[in-house]
Amino acid sequence: MDIFARVRQISLINTTGSILSWDQETYLPSGAADYRAQQLSYLAAHAHELATSAEYLAALDEAESRDTGGNPVHSANLRELRRESDRSIKIPTDLVARESSAQSSAHHAWIKARKEADFSIFAPHLQELLEFATEKAELWGYPGEPYDALLEGFERGTSTATIATMFDTLQAELAPLSANAVAKTREQKPTLPDGPYPISVQQDFNTLVAAEIGFDFHAGRIDTTTHPFCTTLGPSDIRLTTRYESHDFTSSLFGIMHEAGHGMYEQGLPGEDFGLPSGTAVSLGIHESQSRLWENQVGRSPEFWDKFYPIAQEHFKQLKDFPKEKFLQYIHRAEFSPIRVEADEATYDLHIILRFQIERMLLNKEISVAQVPDVWNELFKKSFGFAPANDACGCLQDIHWSMGGIGYFPTYTLGNINAAQLFSAATSDPEISHATSAANYAPLLKWLRENIHAHGGVHDPAALMKKATGSIPETSHYLKHLSARYL
Amino acid sequence: MDIFARVRQISLINTTGSILSWDQETYLPSGAADYRAQQLSYLAAHAHELATSAEYLAALDEAESRDTGGNPVHSANLRELRRESDRSIKIPTDLVARESSAQSSAHHAWIKARKEADFSIFAPHLQELLEFATEKAELWGYPGEPYDALLEGFERGTSTATIATMFDTLQAELAPLSANAVAKTREQKPTLPDGPYPISVQQDFNTLVAAEIGFDFHAGRIDTTTHPFCTTLGPSDIRLTTRYESHDFTSSLFGIMHEAGHGMYEQGLPGEDFGLPSGTAVSLGIHESQSRLWENQVGRSPEFWDKFYPIAQEHFKQLKDFPKEKFLQYIHRAEFSPIRVEADEATYDLHIILRFQIERMLLNKEISVAQVPDVWNELFKKSFGFAPANDACGCLQDIHWSMGGIGYFPTYTLGNINAAQLFSAATSDPEISHATSAANYAPLLKWLRENIHAHGGVHDPAALMKKATGSIPETSHYLKHLSARYL
Repeated sequence: MDIFARVRQISLINTTGSILSWDQETYLPSGAADYRAQQLSYLAAHAHELATSAEYLAALDEAESRDTGGNPVHSANLRELRRESDRSIKIPTDLVARESSAQSSAHHAWIKARKEADFSIFAPHLQELLEFATEKAELWGYPGEPYDALLEGFERGTSTATIATMFDTLQAELAPLSANAVAKTREQKPTLPDGPYPISVQQDFNTLVAAEIGFDFHAGRIDTTTHPFCTTLGPSDIRLTTRYESHDFTSSLFGIMHEAGHGMYEQGLPGEDFGLPSGTAVSLGIHESQSRLWENQVGRSPEFWDKFYPIAQEHFKQLKDFPKEKFLQYIHRAEFSPIRVEADEATYDLHIILRFQIERMLLNKEISVAQVPDVWNELFKKSFGFAPANDACGCLQDIHWSMGGIGYFPTYTLGNINAAQLFSAATSDPEISHATSAANYAPLLKWLRENIHAHGGVHDPAALMKKATGSIPETSHYLKHLSARYL
Repeated sequence: MDIFARVRQISLINTTGSILSWDQETYLPSGAADYRAQQLSYLAAHAHELATSAEYLAALDEAESRDTGGNPVHSANLRELRRESDRSIKIPTDLVARESSAQSSAHHAWIKARKEADFSIFAPHLQELLEFATEKAELWGYPGEPYDALLEGFERGTSTATIATMFDTLQAELAPLSANAVAKTREQKPTLPDGPYPISVQQDFNTLVAAEIGFDFHAGRIDTTTHPFCTTLGPSDIRLTTRYESHDFTSSLFGIMHEAGHGMYEQGLPGEDFGLPSGTAVSLGIHESQSRLWENQVGRSPEFWDKFYPIAQEHFKQLKDFPKEKFLQYIHRAEFSPIRVEADEATYDLHIILRFQIERMLLNKEISVAQVPDVWNELFKKSFGFAPANDACGCLQDIHWSMGGIGYFPTYTLGNINAAQLFSAATSDPEISHATSAANYAPLLKWLRENIHAHGGVHDPAALMKKATGSIPETSHYLKHLSARYL
């Protein structure tokens, strides 16, 4: 088998694992968790074995030696497979096993620590995972600082210094912007008419909206989970999930628009290259740009609601006499909340910047794990004006660290930055701008398909942004968007 | 890895395939079928490779050579693994591949043939599959006739002659019994009050009933499919499906009681032996006995409805003033229908006996494939008094042959026979009889757990029946049950 056949075969196994994980989150009976873990673990080990086998490496060598460079996509695929393979090979198998076991313990400890709002329960586990992260960074190597090596796994070709510079700019601008936005909200006191907003009606409305913006239900579906996500089970099998609040239909709706953004990216990747780098999303920062674009640039725009508010009114009788202007105030409200996942556009990035700063200080050994709660609360107070009531709604709130995901957080804000930059570039075309203003999103999706989706992972994310918009990621479009929305 | 670790690993892969198949029937987006087929095909090939590897066979040899016979379950597991392995090894890999491909073509041809009611479209495919069946029977060998070898795959240790003898008895008795039952129905003209019976209410009622008879929802669930089934995705993950008729809630209810019977068997197998013969259902005839026992012996009994009819009346407002006696007449109605899956207890086995006779004649080369429609119609007319309107509702109605399932049909009637025999044996215990009469089914389920479920595949099905009831399968209890119900 040549290297591509091998990669596609591994992809069959990995997507099979994704089916099992999806089922675990949606429909698995309560007593079936242990056996499901065994099934998943078998598949993961089997895929890992194939991807690190001598035969795999020989096939990659062989393909590289034959590559004439005549087909840039072919060469890019080999380059990326080599990059992934090198990263895998540098980490000894026993380290992978030890880290996986540590993550499992850390995850359980994190659940307990968060429940009891007691950081000391989680601290030794975070210490262990930090040591694994440091060890891996040293094995991988880095141009500037250890955090670079971790970031590379989520946003290849992007340096910590670049992120830090963008985040500094953003933080400086967000301080007055968020204060202003929150003050306006406190003055307007926006509310939504009382529920219940029946869940089945929410589902109908969400499905209608997702289909209207371009999510293909022949190649995907929506189910219900505690934590919303998008997962790819095959080239034409993209599953979204959301959760429902009976008192607020916008919660599940924006959740679905967000996940549909991820899903349309997956649906727009070249299906014939499924499993190969050229058929795979390039990075988390680009992925998140797609979700945030549809959730925020589109879903929270007045133009979107010019078309969809009357339809929402037909679905939810409470909205019948509720003015659209009041509704827009409600979906544009801003507040200083300790919880990231509840944050609005005006404050969300402040949560991310804080996490990035702490992760970076930990990796650079500028602070110890024991200092995390104090540093968290101090930084939080600077941005939000108050300290979280306890660590459960402070440094223990997110699952990421407990899963070893250090270096992941910055891609959320990078997604926001990219979303605004892409939306701005797309709508600089008058035809797209005109259609988008009329809530006709087919031209916008077409632009994203051609400029982002179709390229898969052929270019590095910053290069892809430059190709699409004329510039590598930069904060100006995003700041302009936030100012227009909140000031 | 020892042989049991290998078998358990193969079981992880096979149940993973079952998850994918379950999802395919329940939730798969329409565009995703091709990739799903690739995933399933990879898993099947991978499991087959492991189960026929030199390492597997060496591990089996090794375990056999060490077996002292001191643990009968251990010895039975080795004996059954050897039996399965021998059957697999006798069939060359290329024959498996050729048959699988022929089945796939045959399945498509069957769909077309049934749609167009044109047997000639299916005939060459049936001929091909019959040749495969014959070839395999010769490779496997048989004590009496080729059909024995096929039957062995579904009902090990059972001979065609034994089945034929039981079926002859049954057919002789069913002729007057079915005629009488149908005459009574035509006189009573039983009906159910008009629908709609809302599907969500049907689901609530079915769930209540399934839980009451003992299906464990912590280790299982119910979903909706076109064709009802029960599938095992893990030792505590048994999934049932059914379909809903808005005008008749009893259709989905008896469907669920049937599938829950299968499901409770699976839930009652020794979970610690999952994947091994001792943790696996012994045969189709025993499996079907569990489904038919709960569907017919229990679900269609007047005692069951003494308790559940008032609950049904609370669920479905149409039943409020509809007398229970009329309802019982409705669920005990009998009619000569050309379609097996719509048949009632009084006529069902006539459909099965006809299929068995035709399959046996084909294998014994007493008739040709081209003669199947004529022979079918002739035999059908003898039992039912009329010939089917066309082959679509005659010899083309069932999917089984198109999937190569020759030898499968008799296990349905064997299930009916076993169900009555088991129910009779269990309720010969006055305590169980008393509880069952009061629609308290815990003692009955406990008896089935101890006498059937707990044994997994340790004993041959006939031996298991003898152990549980004192006799190998025999028709008298079933005929007694049918007479009591219909005469």
